[in-house]
Amino acid sequence: MLLLIAEDFIKIDSIPIVLPLYEELVNKTRKEPGCISYELTHDIKNPGHFLFLERWIDEAALQIHTETEHFKHLVPLIDEHTSKKAKYTRMTLVH
Amino acid sequence: MLLLIAEDFIKIDSIPIVLPLYEELVNKTRKEPGCISYELTHDIKNPGHFLFLERWIDEAALQIHTETEHFKHLVPLIDEHTSKKAKYTRMTLVH
Repeated sequence: MLLLIAEDFIKIDSIPIVLPLYEELVNKTRKEPGCISYELTHDIKNPGHFLFLERWIDEAALQIHTETEHFKHLVPLIDEHTSKKAKYTRMTLVH
Repeated sequence: MLLLIAEDFIKIDSIPIVLPLYEELVNKTRKEPGCISYELTHDIKNPGHFLFLERWIDEAALQIHTETEHFKHLVPLIDEHTSKKAKYTRMTLVH
């Protein structure tokens, strides 16, 4: 299993615009065979700092995700509203 | 529900020392009534960068955690092996 934290930094004024895009991304991603779980969270202290908590069967499943129709359609639309580059942390489960 | 990512930055040489301390912390924490889930993960690209993925009933449950015997005993022992301060991100679940 591969765990991933994907962090987006969204301009505060754009939050209402990206939320429906995020919802569509979450709903479609969860249907992918290689997706174990996929959750969107929001930093309480830093509005606009969104963190995806993701679990994939393996790296290949994550790569397939980045090639899907919904990813290729939605992520560029979301990225129009970012204040800085996304940050990705890949992890293994220890306990 | 309160989600928390707690990030530790452990000196690489100290990893074998802190792993059993982490294991004890995880096992005892999971027994706390306010703990929904508590997982330890390790950054694949940055050895020593450990991330706890935590879910608590609420902030009060998290505060109770920091007052437990096991937290007060183990965390100072672990902190002896850090290269920089821990980082905490509190989140709410969006989707």
